[in-house]
Amino acid sequence: MLISQSALRAFTENIFLAMGCSAEHAALAADVLLQADLRGIDSHGVARLIGYVRLWESKRINTSPNITIVHQTPTTATIDGDAGLGLIVAPFAMRLAIEKAEQYGSGWVSVRNSNHFGIAGYHALMAVEKNMIGFAMTNASPLVAPTYSSERLLGTNPMCYAFPAGKYPPVVVDMATSAAANGKLEIAQRAGKPVPEGWIQDAEGNYTTDPHALKSGGSLLPLGGDKEHGSHKGFGLSATVDILSAVLSGANYGPWVPPFVSFLKPPADPVGLGIGHFVGAMRVDGFRPVDEFKTHMDNWVNRFKSAQTVLPDQKVIIPGEPELEAKAHRKVNGIPLVDAVVDDLNGLAEKFGLKKL
Amino acid sequence: MLISQSALRAFTENIFLAMGCSAEHAALAADVLLQADLRGIDSHGVARLIGYVRLWESKRINTSPNITIVHQTPTTATIDGDAGLGLIVAPFAMRLAIEKAEQYGSGWVSVRNSNHFGIAGYHALMAVEKNMIGFAMTNASPLVAPTYSSERLLGTNPMCYAFPAGKYPPVVVDMATSAAANGKLEIAQRAGKPVPEGWIQDAEGNYTTDPHALKSGGSLLPLGGDKEHGSHKGFGLSATVDILSAVLSGANYGPWVPPFVSFLKPPADPVGLGIGHFVGAMRVDGFRPVDEFKTHMDNWVNRFKSAQTVLPDQKVIIPGEPELEAKAHRKVNGIPLVDAVVDDLNGLAEKFGLKKL
Repeated sequence: MLISQSALRAFTENIFLAMGCSAEHAALAADVLLQADLRGIDSHGVARLIGYVRLWESKRINTSPNITIVHQTPTTATIDGDAGLGLIVAPFAMRLAIEKAEQYGSGWVSVRNSNHFGIAGYHALMAVEKNMIGFAMTNASPLVAPTYSSERLLGTNPMCYAFPAGKYPPVVVDMATSAAANGKLEIAQRAGKPVPEGWIQDAEGNYTTDPHALKSGGSLLPLGGDKEHGSHKGFGLSATVDILSAVLSGANYGPWVPPFVSFLKPPADPVGLGIGHFVGAMRVDGFRPVDEFKTHMDNWVNRFKSAQTVLPDQKVIIPGEPELEAKAHRKVNGIPLVDAVVDDLNGLAEKFGLKKL
Repeated sequence: MLISQSALRAFTENIFLAMGCSAEHAALAADVLLQADLRGIDSHGVARLIGYVRLWESKRINTSPNITIVHQTPTTATIDGDAGLGLIVAPFAMRLAIEKAEQYGSGWVSVRNSNHFGIAGYHALMAVEKNMIGFAMTNASPLVAPTYSSERLLGTNPMCYAFPAGKYPPVVVDMATSAAANGKLEIAQRAGKPVPEGWIQDAEGNYTTDPHALKSGGSLLPLGGDKEHGSHKGFGLSATVDILSAVLSGANYGPWVPPFVSFLKPPADPVGLGIGHFVGAMRVDGFRPVDEFKTHMDNWVNRFKSAQTVLPDQKVIIPGEPELEAKAHRKVNGIPLVDAVVDDLNGLAEKFGLKKL
């Protein structure tokens, strides 16, 4: 099914309103999800909506949170999301980081007691609009085994760095710190196809290409795959995300991060509150004039785009480029939804007495 | 040859003095190199000394630099290293970042017109000593091909994040953003052994296991190795390092970064000055009380150390742990130097009329 972004946005907003979100929060939460769908990151768009509803039904998401600043200095802060939607809490954190950056050059906010925040790129790009460099990361429920471990101890823990450019669009590095994100595994599961070696291991820690191994106690692998190919680096990056997002804020970390699915109970012995994020903003003109920076960003992008490639029909892909291409296309042609997602969304419409898609 | 750290330190300091460094700079530069050798990162220790001397002889390193702050806000700054040793310039930048963090919670310094800065971990750990989180990264001369490129456009561009802990030593994530660092390739070259697939490609961009391929126009590959295994993520991380270190500071970036070896000329059309670094410091107590943070860091480390492993004799290695084990051992037993390095160092001693090792 193809649906226009405006229709899908209105539908999504209505679901959030029905969950008890304020008008402002419903519009913001819908925007975060819609930007994922527009940018082609289907795993983080409206497909997630049913999961949020279920967590709300089991009282693990609070749709009228009182988000508070727990602690701060001129350029740092910790906020408590009051179990709100990460889609709301993370933009709150980023606005605070941007305010601090406006005044002092940079701003850094660690977040506890939050939930899934959608795509990291959304939050980092809030800074880019202000001619700042944006940072956003979050920890996530444990699916990834560190190098040598047979236990899942880390989430796919994405990190995002976003940089404004001049005539070119922003450069947005937005990546899970695992070899492959869970979304790619789900695609292989649906297609019944094996996954490449280096993505997952089974419950005993043997490398496998069976995309279903994760369901029977297996783990995703850190970026790098195995030690020989640098999986300790992927582990180190994931650890960095976990520490900045949760050890620093007072959220749960490592295996204590609560699951994103309502049918799995959170650990009985939490070490903090909810999940954690870390966001930051640095003013470009805290370092050099914005126009100079943008001129050199354009030169950087241009040089990489014109690189000699291995095959004649290839080109070097600038980080963030595929998402913008998807957005340009989907804005005009609509957003494709797979049947399972349409069914889920229509089920939600029915639950809340709303018009189906 | 095994040599005590004090003897090697004195020798190294004397070489820097002979190059015209001040006593303070010579001691600092020697300390940065010695910490690499102590920590088992032989590729970044005194083995580099001959390269620095050659660059100094060809007037590309200035041993009496006038390091200046070009631009600053309360929490950000750009400094010009005046073509000084990175071993001197990066600690200057980190001291400035720490001062800013002491006053405002965080400090971020981008650096242009510098040279090779040794191990990133040295600089990041300066912040950890002050109960801060330390960040350090640098761009480097181009050896790495982005995904799909047959050209070398990026350096091994390391990034380091360092976190204080309580009873455990600091967690230090210090990693090249390529699949393998050049040092590992050199080991394979010396041993005449093939390297794993996913480390390098030849001049045409074909994957190869020949460790000598780099010398005939080949490239190192980004962390991830190939697209299927996430090399676009390694490319994105490397791009982040390049932009923060050089586009932000006004240093050279991408293929314009000057080579670290004196026999290769710098590009004739530079886009900036020297190479670039980016360092930062954030006060832990800008987010939560230091003792709380350290208690949770210890819990984090402890949980990962006690993870169930794939094989019974394995354990999960905490980032920074192997380096500390090496340091504990080498402090007592001395630092092993391979013959080629001893010959190089004795050649330098002869050149400067100093006592040989």
